[in-house]
Amino acid sequence: MRILSGMRPTGRLHIGHLSVLENWVRLQEENECFYFISDWHALTTGYDNTAELQENIRAMLLDWLGAGLDPERSTIFVQSHVKEHAELHLLFSMFTPLSWLERVPTYKDQIQQLGKEGKDVSTYGFLGYPLLMAADILIYLADAVPVGEDQLPHLEFCREVARRFNHLYKTLLFPEPQALLAKVAMVPGIDGRKMSKSYHNDIPMSASPEEVWERVRLMITDPARIHKTDPGHPEVCLVHTYHEIYNGEEVEETRVNCRGGRIGCVPCKKRLAEKINAVLEPVRERRARWAARPELVEEILAAGAAKARITAGRTMAMVREAMGV
Amino acid sequence: MRILSGMRPTGRLHIGHLSVLENWVRLQEENECFYFISDWHALTTGYDNTAELQENIRAMLLDWLGAGLDPERSTIFVQSHVKEHAELHLLFSMFTPLSWLERVPTYKDQIQQLGKEGKDVSTYGFLGYPLLMAADILIYLADAVPVGEDQLPHLEFCREVARRFNHLYKTLLFPEPQALLAKVAMVPGIDGRKMSKSYHNDIPMSASPEEVWERVRLMITDPARIHKTDPGHPEVCLVHTYHEIYNGEEVEETRVNCRGGRIGCVPCKKRLAEKINAVLEPVRERRARWAARPELVEEILAAGAAKARITAGRTMAMVREAMGV
Repeated sequence: MRILSGMRPTGRLHIGHLSVLENWVRLQEENECFYFISDWHALTTGYDNTAELQENIRAMLLDWLGAGLDPERSTIFVQSHVKEHAELHLLFSMFTPLSWLERVPTYKDQIQQLGKEGKDVSTYGFLGYPLLMAADILIYLADAVPVGEDQLPHLEFCREVARRFNHLYKTLLFPEPQALLAKVAMVPGIDGRKMSKSYHNDIPMSASPEEVWERVRLMITDPARIHKTDPGHPEVCLVHTYHEIYNGEEVEETRVNCRGGRIGCVPCKKRLAEKINAVLEPVRERRARWAARPELVEEILAAGAAKARITAGRTMAMVREAMGV
Repeated sequence: MRILSGMRPTGRLHIGHLSVLENWVRLQEENECFYFISDWHALTTGYDNTAELQENIRAMLLDWLGAGLDPERSTIFVQSHVKEHAELHLLFSMFTPLSWLERVPTYKDQIQQLGKEGKDVSTYGFLGYPLLMAADILIYLADAVPVGEDQLPHLEFCREVARRFNHLYKTLLFPEPQALLAKVAMVPGIDGRKMSKSYHNDIPMSASPEEVWERVRLMITDPARIHKTDPGHPEVCLVHTYHEIYNGEEVEETRVNCRGGRIGCVPCKKRLAEKINAVLEPVRERRARWAARPELVEEILAAGAAKARITAGRTMAMVREAMGV
């Protein structure tokens, strides 16, 4: 299968992203994968704040490589390096009804929500971003797209665009890409809210062992438990939620010991930090190896873009032929 | 001055277009001119009817060359051959308020009017076409654009986009292109309506002398004049309007003879056809020379696109630098 997925360049990723990336890594074993950093999409909500964009692209790419994405197996590239995405987006715009875009379920919600955060998204580009995403996917004739549930409306939109093109130009050029809904662990932030760099409640994928401990140390535990011998309530303890994700083999034992007042919160947190560090250790090692070779990282992006352009260019030749342009 | 203008590839042009082209020809004498065939714009109102697009591009280009556009002086190219236009349009879309596009004065009028003609223009691309036009102009850092009055709102929109870019990214990259409102003769169709190929009331620029006569012969004259000796009313006679445009030196004499019933409509039309043919003769000759060399015409387009891409590529490098992409 040909698979495509992308992420906006938000800079360093956190451990919540790791399970998404682990899925990408699994997929690259047996599929032809295109993974791209969607810097143009970042502009749809941040056109006025691009000072750190290039730095963010490199930081995120190092996290991808750290997680095990392999540039010899997967085509890894930056969206804006493949201008064909912009051309296909423009051509799609010609036959895409405005109403389709206005009715994308997330559109009005996001205008409201991002508006509250003080972001100006009442732009032509923000309205069109599902169409840019459709071009991103279809230009590689992708069969499947690993997405979260929140992205399903966008993928449905993409399939509609593919069907409309195929119908209008009497072709079977575009497949209708399917969603790959992977089971991805939902890792909360250390304050219990959604984990996000902007909330300062995240554990970066690239955190050192000391930094991991600093974050775990600050995690909110059962507020009713003052002394070690007080019986704990793991069901309201964030550290316990983390043990469920990162320490499956000891989670039962930990739960019993907590309820029985037989383990203090500090040793419980120390154990969790060890477990998280065990997961992050190979990621950190790989990341450090790549980080030491910045010229190689640039080469990955150059080679990825060159390879992506070949596939995208072939599709565009067929698109132009079908449309008569 | 650097000057840019374009036309949609509607196929063969008519004599009404000739005075626009004569202006372009004058401008190329002392300016750096970019003239482009806007095939992407043609898609905004005709995405579902592209069967004749390539033929129309070549036919129109021959008319341009026939009118005297000189590929050694001017850069002549097809819009879709310079992908950078699509990239700049996409980047502009990120910071262009939807409301700016919705309020372009012609937008709602055209939706209504084209809707009546059965064209579907409620698309994302049709809404965005003034923005594509802004990218077309600004990517060449054009100082001036020869336009008709009806295009002034689009040029004002283009200037607003330039100002917004310069303001947001703290640069002076884009000039604010000025309108060159040339005095262009308004040539009515042979039935008195607007001249248009689709009304079948046009005189093609490429018409043979016989075809010109066929068209002039059909022109509507003073309906009150039955016999040659009846006094005519030149002010209601289409042939007279044409004499004003194409036969300035004899128009007074013709008017007097018509009013006095001293010249019949047929000789009056014959004289007009001669005058139109005198104008078209050099155009036909040049056109025929180019039409005999189709491979040279393709070379003009290839060389024009290559040259346009150099200028457009330079601008895009500065745009990306300014935006941090």
